[in-house]
Amino acid sequence: MKMTFLGTGAGVPSKERNVSSLVLHTENRQNSLWLFDCGEGTQQQFLNSSPKAGKVDRIFITHLHGDHLYGLPGFLASRSFQGAERPLTIYGPAGIEAYVRTSLEISGTHLLYDCRFEEIRKSGRLFESDGYTVVTDQLDHGIPSFGYRIEAPSKPGPLLKERVQAEGIEPGPWLGELKQGKRVTLPDGRKVCGHDYIGSPIKGKTAVILGDTRKCKAAEVLSREADVVVHEATFSGEEEKRAYDFYHSTTIHAAQTARDARAKKLILTHISPRYTNPEPLLKEAVSVFAYTVIAKDFMTMIV
Amino acid sequence: MKMTFLGTGAGVPSKERNVSSLVLHTENRQNSLWLFDCGEGTQQQFLNSSPKAGKVDRIFITHLHGDHLYGLPGFLASRSFQGAERPLTIYGPAGIEAYVRTSLEISGTHLLYDCRFEEIRKSGRLFESDGYTVVTDQLDHGIPSFGYRIEAPSKPGPLLKERVQAEGIEPGPWLGELKQGKRVTLPDGRKVCGHDYIGSPIKGKTAVILGDTRKCKAAEVLSREADVVVHEATFSGEEEKRAYDFYHSTTIHAAQTARDARAKKLILTHISPRYTNPEPLLKEAVSVFAYTVIAKDFMTMIV
Repeated sequence: MKMTFLGTGAGVPSKERNVSSLVLHTENRQNSLWLFDCGEGTQQQFLNSSPKAGKVDRIFITHLHGDHLYGLPGFLASRSFQGAERPLTIYGPAGIEAYVRTSLEISGTHLLYDCRFEEIRKSGRLFESDGYTVVTDQLDHGIPSFGYRIEAPSKPGPLLKERVQAEGIEPGPWLGELKQGKRVTLPDGRKVCGHDYIGSPIKGKTAVILGDTRKCKAAEVLSREADVVVHEATFSGEEEKRAYDFYHSTTIHAAQTARDARAKKLILTHISPRYTNPEPLLKEAVSVFAYTVIAKDFMTMIV
Repeated sequence: MKMTFLGTGAGVPSKERNVSSLVLHTENRQNSLWLFDCGEGTQQQFLNSSPKAGKVDRIFITHLHGDHLYGLPGFLASRSFQGAERPLTIYGPAGIEAYVRTSLEISGTHLLYDCRFEEIRKSGRLFESDGYTVVTDQLDHGIPSFGYRIEAPSKPGPLLKERVQAEGIEPGPWLGELKQGKRVTLPDGRKVCGHDYIGSPIKGKTAVILGDTRKCKAAEVLSREADVVVHEATFSGEEEKRAYDFYHSTTIHAAQTARDARAKKLILTHISPRYTNPEPLLKEAVSVFAYTVIAKDFMTMIV
């Protein structure tokens, strides 16, 4: 999988950071893009970035604050205007459907594709599709705010070339069939089974994308042993009380969560516009959890 | 007065043109800014432009299509977040208040300033304030779409310096009082009245800002003898049928309206993203009405 950050700022846009949005490039059959949050100006960020809006077929809204939400009607309308036909499903807190339908109706907008809504009623497995599993849980943000854990399917193990050679199996089209685990009759008459020549499956990657939150247990549980955790860091470590009062996290909180969850990598986003230089924020986080990156708009990261 | 164009594209944003928005810099006592339409991304356009969102105290929405509207909740929320306290009045078609209130409510947004709505129920004088008069009329766009005519107050005439000199009035602080039309006793004992030394008042400028429309009589009447008319030109002159079918205007239509209204200047905006080179559009319009300009994002124009 791969992620492209379209908006990495908190609350209001700045010249450097637009409000929240992130594209997850899946590796499913359609190479679908999944969009996480859709702050105002997300459709403009798409214009300056390589992902194509028409390839987005699922949108996950973490919570209904405007800086995560207000770009959604425009994104949906422009996606239709530009001729996209792929159906779309929108996940989010209760209220998301009413908001979108009101906005589209009042502006006389008719989408030319099927747009479905799944409002989140409970924690746990949200769906499974094409081997991908998405799990959600509620965080601690004053209003319902969700985190999403995306588990990609395992990939088949590699062909064990050394064993193939050791048994004198010559190169040829049968190697492709063996790699798929099929039974094959070799040119010399031997019957062999692909499963004997394939290594262990390669575990699928896990990405966790969290909505705005105070430091909380749900974020840690959702993030357990993830390959990458995207966590808000609205405030520096010195602003712990302020973060608590406004239901947000500091750099230190995010790093503690990633460390305690034994995640492999942490990406900090939702950076307040007051921090024009991210270096001190990064230093704080790295002092707790070394594998930390601070997101910036248009950054792409392999998961 | 002065205008700054923040979004000059039609329907969807492009890299060159954001969706509709325009700032009118008034010369009233507060030097208020008035915003006309607020497509998605207007608040981001403010970041890259000199007008300040906090100085906007009236917003006029021409019609409720998304490309003129979807930036409004974010603009209002960020204006509050940034500490603006000046009360704000929003004018627009019926439905504007429900749209804004739904968006703010669902996103848990509380504005820290007073925000009033005046939904337009009839054509004619919308308000008078500080010498400014705003008149509105409905255009022809399938849904209610309004044009606004803004008449600035007259300015006092200049001090007639030649007459002052001819009558042997020496330079001194009394000249300022004469300029204000006051009665003054000169150092030599003469009593004179300012009104005798002031030229005729200078007529205030008139700007007309029209919503999306087919060519129609209401646009022409509203634009009569205006100093500047801002008119949509979604299509080139060759697309007359298409313009009619989609309730829009061509360059030629806009130029005919400006010509028939005997306006002084025409600014074309709401240019479809299909026209990456505006030169041919300008040529078409100029063939009908010479004093035509094609707007571009961040262009500022003295009225």
